[in-house]
Amino acid sequence: MDPAGLAVCLVSGGMDSCVTAAIAARENGSLAFFHASYGQRTEKRELTAFHDIANFYSVSKRLICSLAHLSEIGGSALTDPNIPLPEASLHRSDIPVSYVPFRNANMLSAAVAWSEVLGGSRIYVGAVEEDSSGYPDCREEFFQSFQHAANLGTRPETQIEIRTPLIHMTKAAIVKKGVELSAPLHLSWSCYRGEEIACGQCDSCLLRLRGFQQAGVIDPIPYLKGGSRQVGEWESG
Amino acid sequence: MDPAGLAVCLVSGGMDSCVTAAIAARENGSLAFFHASYGQRTEKRELTAFHDIANFYSVSKRLICSLAHLSEIGGSALTDPNIPLPEASLHRSDIPVSYVPFRNANMLSAAVAWSEVLGGSRIYVGAVEEDSSGYPDCREEFFQSFQHAANLGTRPETQIEIRTPLIHMTKAAIVKKGVELSAPLHLSWSCYRGEEIACGQCDSCLLRLRGFQQAGVIDPIPYLKGGSRQVGEWESG
Repeated sequence: MDPAGLAVCLVSGGMDSCVTAAIAARENGSLAFFHASYGQRTEKRELTAFHDIANFYSVSKRLICSLAHLSEIGGSALTDPNIPLPEASLHRSDIPVSYVPFRNANMLSAAVAWSEVLGGSRIYVGAVEEDSSGYPDCREEFFQSFQHAANLGTRPETQIEIRTPLIHMTKAAIVKKGVELSAPLHLSWSCYRGEEIACGQCDSCLLRLRGFQQAGVIDPIPYLKGGSRQVGEWESG
Repeated sequence: MDPAGLAVCLVSGGMDSCVTAAIAARENGSLAFFHASYGQRTEKRELTAFHDIANFYSVSKRLICSLAHLSEIGGSALTDPNIPLPEASLHRSDIPVSYVPFRNANMLSAAVAWSEVLGGSRIYVGAVEEDSSGYPDCREEFFQSFQHAANLGTRPETQIEIRTPLIHMTKAAIVKKGVELSAPLHLSWSCYRGEEIACGQCDSCLLRLRGFQQAGVIDPIPYLKGGSRQVGEWESG
């Protein structure tokens, strides 16, 4: 607890960042919300969720950071419409096509710059290692190495701690933590495909739905008909 | 020497990046030029120098990366017109107001993402530690830590080496290296203030002029009347 401190929180608008924001709100005196826009397919819907969550926590300091170069660079199904998003496969071990090359470093670099100017002492990132899709820049050791780079690449008086409170949690534990902290999960958005109703079939939807199911909690957002049934099929398949 | 390899070269358009490009052209089979645009005062002039140097080396792969958030974040005399650029003082030990918070991490993150998609094996950065203005993100240990983060935050098969060939060189040694490699120094631009004729009085001009003077080489670009005399005054003052 640092009631006087300012924390920058990376908020995509998804479930994980929503719960991370709830944790950051508990642990800090004031918050600044950072959102990255990089040509992701559901950018508009994510941004709505971002602002809804920011309003929920009465956060006035907001930075919408354009990382349009990530879209220009491409190499990911999230930013290049020519690369199809495959049906989810939760047993896969390789890195999926939705990996956006070095995205988290691009976001963190901007967030560290912002935090340095704001005089913030912490940055919160809702990355999840074990239960995630295997992105290399979602692993704890990546964040630790980036922490080291941030220490060395900023002013000596700048001390920013990068916190990843969900990094070793399962999606089910994240749902439970969100419920415990009254995080506004109904305002969050996780789907990679839809912008009005979540598809229930992409990686991100499947992981979310499985988390709610395992936590014994009803997901408050609507899904396309048959979406949530997909999880049951996968569990028994 | 890796004649088959592709290298991404960060090219601001200044003298250091011009000489770095000459080194990269020697050491690699093909080049891709990366330029960051972040609302710096002399952005337009830098971009002209970037394209001139790219044309000189027949580099067709070019990425102009907008890091406009660095301007929005501010905190630097290079991006915020309300913070005046002071007269240069080469004996100073503190971090000058022209430091752009964590700028090099923002540039490198984008360059690593691009290199990963291009399949490049090296990134060249013309950062100079000893003879620079004391920016924390220009130190070798920062680049080493960022190298570590890049190794961990990209695909296992992605192997990108970050090279900073000028990091321990003086400006005079850089001028000599540029002359040795026939780098197009006449196309480069270093001034933080002017866009038509270099001012000869800002940090960047003073460092450049002193480098040419100590190398015994005439700087091929024009300066405002009295600009280069300033160096002599500083040397004897």
